[in-house]
Amino acid sequence: MKIALDAMGSDARPAPDVNGAVQAARAFGICVILVGDQSKIQAELAKYDTHGLDLPIVHTPAEIAMTDHVDAVKAKKDASMNVGVGLVKSKQADAFVTAGNSGAAMAAGLLGLGRIRGIHRPALGTIYPTAIGRSFLLDIGANTEVKPEYLFQFAIMGSAYAERVMGTPEPRVGLLSNGEEEGKGPLVVREAYSLLKTSRLNFIGNVEGKDVPKGKADVVVSDGYAGNIVIKLSEGLAETLVGFIKAEIKARPLAVVGAALAKSAFDALRVRLDYAEFGGGILLGVDGVVIIGHGRSNAKAIRNAIRVAKQAVEGNMLDAIRAGLE
Amino acid sequence: MKIALDAMGSDARPAPDVNGAVQAARAFGICVILVGDQSKIQAELAKYDTHGLDLPIVHTPAEIAMTDHVDAVKAKKDASMNVGVGLVKSKQADAFVTAGNSGAAMAAGLLGLGRIRGIHRPALGTIYPTAIGRSFLLDIGANTEVKPEYLFQFAIMGSAYAERVMGTPEPRVGLLSNGEEEGKGPLVVREAYSLLKTSRLNFIGNVEGKDVPKGKADVVVSDGYAGNIVIKLSEGLAETLVGFIKAEIKARPLAVVGAALAKSAFDALRVRLDYAEFGGGILLGVDGVVIIGHGRSNAKAIRNAIRVAKQAVEGNMLDAIRAGLE
Repeated sequence: MKIALDAMGSDARPAPDVNGAVQAARAFGICVILVGDQSKIQAELAKYDTHGLDLPIVHTPAEIAMTDHVDAVKAKKDASMNVGVGLVKSKQADAFVTAGNSGAAMAAGLLGLGRIRGIHRPALGTIYPTAIGRSFLLDIGANTEVKPEYLFQFAIMGSAYAERVMGTPEPRVGLLSNGEEEGKGPLVVREAYSLLKTSRLNFIGNVEGKDVPKGKADVVVSDGYAGNIVIKLSEGLAETLVGFIKAEIKARPLAVVGAALAKSAFDALRVRLDYAEFGGGILLGVDGVVIIGHGRSNAKAIRNAIRVAKQAVEGNMLDAIRAGLE
Repeated sequence: MKIALDAMGSDARPAPDVNGAVQAARAFGICVILVGDQSKIQAELAKYDTHGLDLPIVHTPAEIAMTDHVDAVKAKKDASMNVGVGLVKSKQADAFVTAGNSGAAMAAGLLGLGRIRGIHRPALGTIYPTAIGRSFLLDIGANTEVKPEYLFQFAIMGSAYAERVMGTPEPRVGLLSNGEEEGKGPLVVREAYSLLKTSRLNFIGNVEGKDVPKGKADVVVSDGYAGNIVIKLSEGLAETLVGFIKAEIKARPLAVVGAALAKSAFDALRVRLDYAEFGGGILLGVDGVVIIGHGRSNAKAIRNAIRVAKQAVEGNMLDAIRAGLE
């Protein structure tokens, strides 16, 4: 197994990227190809004991900045992101991982790998921690306008991901809407409902906003506008609520004990919600495995994004999507 | 000031409805007209000291059930909801409050009162507790499909509400999207952005999901699909997170102290998030004040919904909307 990693991806590039690669190579016993500026990568590698680890470097000096427009993908052919995707295209790597500019990463993946035959639009998915485990949400921002067939295919891809990568048997697929009943939601959602209910998927019907954190569905399907709002609202609300509760607890008479008690509880919550625990976003529908981490990824997040890539390869996610399309 | 109340509104009708009316009549010194089954209302009224309170009854035996289709509004002309709206139409009441079937309440309001001249579509709004205070969100479910002009008018109506009823000077109006930059979001959102940026409103641009609980905007404008997801996701996530933190705190070694400490902190949070504290949803764009509470409203929620209605009348909300449309 060879995973290509964009060493020039994260906000703090290349330190967390290289550190995460070293951790992943050791933990998973795989080859991680570091794509980027050779001298910078070597300087980082020198900080670790890499004896016996398979960490080849593919040198390219160019990189795409977080502030770059998505057009930079076409302009900078030798950017680390394009070179990394190229390694997947040419079968020199099994998957590509980047914590770089997500718009650019989606474009690089689509341009470099093309779509799986029959897929209308690739989608970006992510793992969502719920009250009872983890769900998979897609699309979270690649497609702000959708057609019913797109949502239908998102469901196929999300179900394949949940089953093959997350290990959920017969994933319960829910369609995000503003009411549980069939017939609720905008026309595009109602038409997608019709497609889904006659499919081979384990379609459980519409799910509402409240059902997402409760884990009612293993796969939550929506357009990228609503899905993006779900993800960002969840982040913002968790932060706001936790901040409020912490402040309230600390304001109580037994403040010292309260703060001490609260700390470990909140640490547990942070672990549960922490992106570093759950790896990155997943680009589905392109003809290759592409994992897109947060720009703010630390080494652990990079390592886990590489783990997610490895699981997608091992689970034959692409074949599962192809089979689902038939 | 006379507020008509649907006494046959809430899930536990008419007990919380009548109790809330008694509380409101006393607290605010206003007349609350109880619309519904006279004998049932009188049986409830007999439980309270109503001496000196202005609580006339308008008798009608018919009511719309929570399970009724919205067509029931047309079929049951003498339902309490229709009769209550009729009192506003005939100027016998200044506003109407119901905790009944919200789809039916919107239809009854629209059919009975008509739209404010120039309004394309009425919207349902609600108050949203934030980290720094309260925002106003609309639409939260009346319109799953919108046009740019609808969103533009929602902004005008929401701004009028925030200013006149919530007392927020120059409300900051944000457009819900999947990115802050102009140009982010589906076409309808981008076109609404263009309309809003040349308006007289205090338009602050797009707001993302994470900005809603943080209170970045005083008025958050969206279609009813996304708005409904925001509201329900917020409810569900708050419940999930609070449940998780409570469980974690109680599981700590100093469990008894932890639980005691946590209880008052969580009580404070509950007060902050409690719908009973914040009153109901507000139907904006019809030619009259209509407040739609949750079916699960208790007496306090009913009282506060009546307070919201009173504030909307006192603040001349309808005139403010009319002025905003010019």
